[in-house]
Amino acid sequence: MIDETHHPDLRSWVDSANEPGTDFPIQNLPLGTVRRDPSEAGTVAVAIGNDVMLLDVAVRLGLLSGPAREAAAACADGFINPLMALGPGPRRALRAGLVNALRADSDTGRRARSHASELLVTASDVEMLVPAAIGDYSDFYASIEHAKNLGSMFRPDNPLLPNYKYVPIGYHGRASSIVASGTGIVRPSGQTKAETDAAPSFGPTKRLDYELEVGVFVGPGNSLSEPIPIAQAEERMFGLCLVNDWSARDVQGWEYQPLGPFLAKNFATSVSPWVVTMDALEPFRAPAFRRADGDPAPLPYLSSPANETAGGVDIQLEVWLRSAKMRAAKTPAYRLSHVRFTQMYWTLAQLVTHHASNGCNLNPGDLLASGTVSGAAKDSRGCMQELTWRGTEPITLPSGEQRRFLEDGDEVIMRGFCERDGCARIGFGECRGTVLPAIASAGHIT
Amino acid sequence: MIDETHHPDLRSWVDSANEPGTDFPIQNLPLGTVRRDPSEAGTVAVAIGNDVMLLDVAVRLGLLSGPAREAAAACADGFINPLMALGPGPRRALRAGLVNALRADSDTGRRARSHASELLVTASDVEMLVPAAIGDYSDFYASIEHAKNLGSMFRPDNPLLPNYKYVPIGYHGRASSIVASGTGIVRPSGQTKAETDAAPSFGPTKRLDYELEVGVFVGPGNSLSEPIPIAQAEERMFGLCLVNDWSARDVQGWEYQPLGPFLAKNFATSVSPWVVTMDALEPFRAPAFRRADGDPAPLPYLSSPANETAGGVDIQLEVWLRSAKMRAAKTPAYRLSHVRFTQMYWTLAQLVTHHASNGCNLNPGDLLASGTVSGAAKDSRGCMQELTWRGTEPITLPSGEQRRFLEDGDEVIMRGFCERDGCARIGFGECRGTVLPAIASAGHIT
Repeated sequence: MIDETHHPDLRSWVDSANEPGTDFPIQNLPLGTVRRDPSEAGTVAVAIGNDVMLLDVAVRLGLLSGPAREAAAACADGFINPLMALGPGPRRALRAGLVNALRADSDTGRRARSHASELLVTASDVEMLVPAAIGDYSDFYASIEHAKNLGSMFRPDNPLLPNYKYVPIGYHGRASSIVASGTGIVRPSGQTKAETDAAPSFGPTKRLDYELEVGVFVGPGNSLSEPIPIAQAEERMFGLCLVNDWSARDVQGWEYQPLGPFLAKNFATSVSPWVVTMDALEPFRAPAFRRADGDPAPLPYLSSPANETAGGVDIQLEVWLRSAKMRAAKTPAYRLSHVRFTQMYWTLAQLVTHHASNGCNLNPGDLLASGTVSGAAKDSRGCMQELTWRGTEPITLPSGEQRRFLEDGDEVIMRGFCERDGCARIGFGECRGTVLPAIASAGHIT
Repeated sequence: MIDETHHPDLRSWVDSANEPGTDFPIQNLPLGTVRRDPSEAGTVAVAIGNDVMLLDVAVRLGLLSGPAREAAAACADGFINPLMALGPGPRRALRAGLVNALRADSDTGRRARSHASELLVTASDVEMLVPAAIGDYSDFYASIEHAKNLGSMFRPDNPLLPNYKYVPIGYHGRASSIVASGTGIVRPSGQTKAETDAAPSFGPTKRLDYELEVGVFVGPGNSLSEPIPIAQAEERMFGLCLVNDWSARDVQGWEYQPLGPFLAKNFATSVSPWVVTMDALEPFRAPAFRRADGDPAPLPYLSSPANETAGGVDIQLEVWLRSAKMRAAKTPAYRLSHVRFTQMYWTLAQLVTHHASNGCNLNPGDLLASGTVSGAAKDSRGCMQELTWRGTEPITLPSGEQRRFLEDGDEVIMRGFCERDGCARIGFGECRGTVLPAIASAGHIT
């Protein structure tokens, strides 16, 4: 539903929200959890321009009413999860209420403006937390280009396994180690074994990588044993964020058979702090990936006309890198790759429906990540393993440094935004993380 | 530490706790979460004979004092997790206090007995819940016989992968679908493809299986990026339970490459409701598995003299099956297999240390399961896939029925106990689950 809340002419009384290029115009209004002091509990907020609006203050000031107020009140304990559980109706009511409170031309907006000092906090003055209490985290493998690239490195004769075009392949990740953007990522240690080594050894990974992904937060869940039909999958999605699925490729290569990646991935996963709601993304919906001639159609349980027509989301994604040397020289970050999320072989709705197809219960706030987003072009590959082809084709940074994998001090910055004619551009903000040195020598835990 | 609390002569004023063969003598005292009514929140209780003792009532009656009272008070919100977080000291203090309150020959015991009607509830009158709030659930693959058996079915030439003797292989499971013993297990649907089929189809699994496992609940956790040295792994373990990792083998065969099992496992995992503490298990500790000549030693981070000497736990485990027909005919359950937990290639301490070796943060109440416990003997195999060799060697039940995999109406009952001379026998209670029919036809969710 593309309504006036997406129109580029809609303006906010928060001036920075009207600046061209802002990720957070009034047309976006993503939700997140913030705190001003590490001793504080989190509180739910909305991004608007360079500020965040505190939801509990908006309620207290009477700037939200009716269903919008009720929806905001669901977040009173500092978690978005209860709002996520309520589904699209209350979420949309909240959006309408927030637009009304933040637009320049409404009575409520004028009243809100008079309380600006109470209602708004400069974004740089708050700490952003992981936006929801994530009960379970699942990670998929929905980019066929990524699957082909990885597959051709490990299995040159048979890059794409026979199940790929039928099964939205996924696995469970670690919820406890999901961290907010900005959290330093300590280089993990693990077992690795080069092909020429007789036995593995334990020590800091030499092949630390990032993976550019998009995550969907589950809205209303399903009870155990109750699948989610594809026709209902969209209403089970609350909103999206960016995900960096940090990976230790040498650990992964040695450990992953036969049960999949484990310690190669579970040391940290970064998420961008703002959840862009499905309502804000409405104008940017796109057809599902067009399968190549000869590819099988999705099985009926993963298939619907609506999914075919508008199951995709046209998000433009970018990965940037800034080394310690570049930071010291004030060289700006360097863009490693850019890709559109419409390249994904499986839609988010298909991931949701597949996940619940055996009755597995999804809960509000659970995170499903897409898997690395890679396109066909070389500069659209979503991880270092692909960009440098397993380290064999190093990247040269503006500083003259070369990269096969990530080095200590490297900062990885992921960005995402949506734009199209007739609508305001909206963005995801950033998902950042800097690699910190391993905590001690290889033998540190013995 | 084998002290008088393990001695078989110690007797409780709760008569049923003194009966030979009870799983819950005063020497055991496992913790669980119970409720009397589905509308109630859970409350923490201790199993004693055929009864459960309510911890909050014991506190209120002043039957616990000092550190024992403080430890019990940590469970005041109905969760064991805060007690788990406190570590071995408070856990042991609680055990000492509970022994004092439940023994026949103490003043406190006599006082407790006078309040028996308030303090105790018949076990069959309460509903047992999942014993802790499980944040993350990980599942390992620590039985070499299981790995060899499964491997030889899938890769006859190369049953055991080269990483097995170095890496305690594990993967993340689903926390949301962990259910308490007694919960019915709806037969899941999923994609399967026989080798002779051109394409997969979606429908109820035809190869539903159980897996006999032992789970360890994490006590005090570790912060992100802080490994747990093997010398500290024992103090991070709170206690053990039985786990049934239900599996859909046909779904697993089609989906598991390259990222491991997902929908084949995450539809349900049953746990026994009583957590047997590491203190109760102290007399039953055993040497770590004796590796075959020529096997590599564990890498230094997985190695310690204490783990070598006493890293094992001598639990005797059994799986029983009762079909609907057997139930109707009042035929007792039939024992499918029995095995000792000392057969595991990796100790629980090694699983804990390996899991955290990359800095992955474990939290109090997290569950780590061992993987299927199988021994070398045929009747010690811990799942149907192995017992019937992938369905090719069916089992005949006392009813005359044959089983290749589980049928609707089959009840799987897992039991575990420890016994040795000079100590009281203790048991784990049961982990039960009955297979319920798939909720509709194969096309039900389209």
